[in-house]
Amino acid sequence: MLDLPTIQLIRRPGIIELGWGHPNAALLPVDGMRQAAAQALDRWGADALNYGADQGAGPLLAWLSERIARTEGRAPHPDEIMITGGVSQALDQICTLCTQPGDIALVESPTYHLAIRILRDHPLELLSIPADEHGLRIDALAEIIAELRRTGRRPRLLYCVPTFHNPTGASLQAERRAALVALAAAEQMLIIEDDVYRELSYDGPPPPSLWSLAPPDTVARLASFAKSLAPGVRLGWLTAGPRIAGRLIGSGLLDSGGGVNHFTSLMVTAFCASAQYDQQIARLRTAYRTRRDTLLAGMAAHLPPSCTWTTPGGGFFVWVRLPEGMDAAALLPRAEAAGVAYLPGALFHSGGGGANTLRLAFSLYDPDELIEAARRLGRVV
Amino acid sequence: MLDLPTIQLIRRPGIIELGWGHPNAALLPVDGMRQAAAQALDRWGADALNYGADQGAGPLLAWLSERIARTEGRAPHPDEIMITGGVSQALDQICTLCTQPGDIALVESPTYHLAIRILRDHPLELLSIPADEHGLRIDALAEIIAELRRTGRRPRLLYCVPTFHNPTGASLQAERRAALVALAAAEQMLIIEDDVYRELSYDGPPPPSLWSLAPPDTVARLASFAKSLAPGVRLGWLTAGPRIAGRLIGSGLLDSGGGVNHFTSLMVTAFCASAQYDQQIARLRTAYRTRRDTLLAGMAAHLPPSCTWTTPGGGFFVWVRLPEGMDAAALLPRAEAAGVAYLPGALFHSGGGGANTLRLAFSLYDPDELIEAARRLGRVV
Repeated sequence: MLDLPTIQLIRRPGIIELGWGHPNAALLPVDGMRQAAAQALDRWGADALNYGADQGAGPLLAWLSERIARTEGRAPHPDEIMITGGVSQALDQICTLCTQPGDIALVESPTYHLAIRILRDHPLELLSIPADEHGLRIDALAEIIAELRRTGRRPRLLYCVPTFHNPTGASLQAERRAALVALAAAEQMLIIEDDVYRELSYDGPPPPSLWSLAPPDTVARLASFAKSLAPGVRLGWLTAGPRIAGRLIGSGLLDSGGGVNHFTSLMVTAFCASAQYDQQIARLRTAYRTRRDTLLAGMAAHLPPSCTWTTPGGGFFVWVRLPEGMDAAALLPRAEAAGVAYLPGALFHSGGGGANTLRLAFSLYDPDELIEAARRLGRVV
Repeated sequence: MLDLPTIQLIRRPGIIELGWGHPNAALLPVDGMRQAAAQALDRWGADALNYGADQGAGPLLAWLSERIARTEGRAPHPDEIMITGGVSQALDQICTLCTQPGDIALVESPTYHLAIRILRDHPLELLSIPADEHGLRIDALAEIIAELRRTGRRPRLLYCVPTFHNPTGASLQAERRAALVALAAAEQMLIIEDDVYRELSYDGPPPPSLWSLAPPDTVARLASFAKSLAPGVRLGWLTAGPRIAGRLIGSGLLDSGGGVNHFTSLMVTAFCASAQYDQQIARLRTAYRTRRDTLLAGMAAHLPPSCTWTTPGGGFFVWVRLPEGMDAAALLPRAEAAGVAYLPGALFHSGGGGANTLRLAFSLYDPDELIEAARRLGRVV
C-alpha cells in the first residue's frame, strides 16, 4: 500500500520549526468548515457540485465585493473581480496569459521565495529591486526601469508584497505606495500585489492596498483565504482592471474547468455569510499578535545586541539580520542541533545576497515554544 | 448587491440544451458528499484544512494506486502518480512546464474544443490529425510527423481523447493504441491522454489506457473525478513517467500552494473509502446508458436517413453528420427556435472543416426530454 504524506508540513523531533509559514493547527476552523460544507450542500444542492461560473461563484463574488467596498473604500466593478485558486494559482495564470518567456519580472529583494519559483517556471527573467525598512525603494525601481530603457527593454511586471511582507514583515510606506502606482501607470508596468496577509494586522487597520489607490489595469491584487481561513480550501480572489481580469476569466482553463474550486467557494460562502468570518479574523489577530509579541520579547531577552530584527505590523514573519559576515545557511545545522530551525535569508534573494539574514515564522507554535525557540537561537548565535 | 451566476450552465426557457456536456443534477451525490466532508474533517481534523503535500494527499494517492492496479493491470510507481485540479488544470500545467510558446501540439480532428483553447493560451501551434470511426488515424499521424521532420520541426506533444471521445464518442482501436504508443516512443513525442470518460463505459469494460500500454515518460494520462463524482470538487489525477510527473510535482505552483485542492482531496478520499464510489459508478453507468439508448432510439425514429451518427460505448456524446452541404452552425438558430440546441461541429475542428457535423450531449436531460429533443431535431433537419 502506497504510503505518502498527507500534508506538506514536516516536523522533526526535538526541533522547533520556525521555517514554516504555516498556521497553528488549533486556529483552523474545523467545526465551522464542517457546518459550512453541510450548509453549502443544503442551500445550493447539486449546484454546489456542478461546473461553476467561469468568473467564480456569484454568491462569493457578491460577499467579497461588499466587504472590499466597506473595508477598502473602493468597490470593484463586476468585471474587476474574480475567484482564484489562491495567490499561487492566480500568479501562475497571470504569467501564462499576460507574459512571454524571457519577459522581465521585477521582484523585491528579499521577496517570497516560492513566488520566485513560479515566475521562473514560466520562465521569466527576474531582476531584484532593493528594499529597506519602509519597503521597496521607489528611487531604485525608477533607476532600474530607466537603465532598462536605455538598452531598449522594459519590465513586464513587478511582483511585490507591500503589506506585512514575506519575509521581512515590513509594509510599504504611504508615500511610496502613491509613488509606486504612479510610476507603474506611467511605465505601463503591471503590479502584481500579493496581498495575502491583509487580514492579519496586529496594530490597527492595514495600509490601503495598491489596487485601491491605482488607476484601472495598473494593479492585479491577489488575495486569499489561505491565511484568514484555511490553506486547504485553495481559494482566493483577484481584483484588477477589466483587461487583466477579463483575460483570466476568458481563459480556456476556466471555461473548461468551470472556474476554480467551485465547491470550496460555496463552502466558504456559507462560512462567511454567518458572523463567523469576522469572529475568525478577530481570533487570529489576537492569537498571532500574542505570538509575535512573545517571540519578539524572547529575542530581546536572548539574542545578542549585534543582531537586529523587524517588528512586523502583521503577517507571520520576523526578519533577522545577524552580524555582518555571519552566514545564516552555514549556521543552520548548528541551530537544528540546538533544536531550532529557520529559513536562511539567501533563499529570498533572487539576485544573491542576504547571507547574514534569516526568516522566523511565529505562526505555527504556541507562545511557550516561541520563547524556547528564541532561547535556543540565542545560544547558537 | 452584485448578482452574478453561481454555475456555468445556462438554460434557456423552451430549449432542450444538448450543447452542454454537463451532468444530470439528480446524479450528483449531494448526500454522499455532505457525509464525506464531515468524515474528512472528523478523520483528519486540521490536517484537512492545511497545506497539502505537493504530490497530493497520501491517502487519496494510495486509494487511486490500488484501484488503478486492480482495474488497469499496471500499478503506478509512487513517483508516477499525482493529484491534479482536474484535466484542465493538469493540461495547463503540462503546457507551462513542458512546452515553449510556438511548439507544435498535434490534436485530433475533431477534438475537445476547450482543450484547443488551453493549448492556444500557452500559446502552442496546433496541427490537426484526421480521425475516423476507429479514432485517430495513425497513418496520417506518421505522415504529418515525417512531413514536419522534412522542414526540421517536430511535434512536442499529441493531445487526444482515445476512450469515449469528446466529441465523437469513438474509442481508439486496439491495434491503433499499440501503434500510437510505439510511434510516440520512437519520436519522443509526449502523448497527453485525456481519460476523463473512462468510468462511464456502457457496454463492458473500457479499452486499456494508453498509459497502461506505453513505456515510461511516453504518456501523461489525465483522469478526473469530474464525470464520475462531481465537477465542482475540481479534482483529478495524473499518471505519467517520473520525468513528467516529477517536473509537475516539483513546480513552484504546487510547493507554494501545498498541492492543489487538498480539502476536496480528503473529502473525496472519505467518499471513496466507503463502498460509495463503486455504487456511484454503477448508478451512473445505468442512468447514462439509458439516456444514450433513448437518444439513439429517438434519432433513429425522427432523423432522416441522410443523417448518420456514432453509437458511443461510453461518455456523454453522440456525433451527428448531416448531409454534405448542410451547415450545422447555420442551422442552429432554427433548431433553437424549434426548442433544441447543440454544439456545431466546426467548434471541434481546430484546422477548419466539420461544417456538417454537430455534437449532442445526452448527459444533462432525462430520457423523455431526450426523445422530445430528437423529435425537434428531426423536424429541423
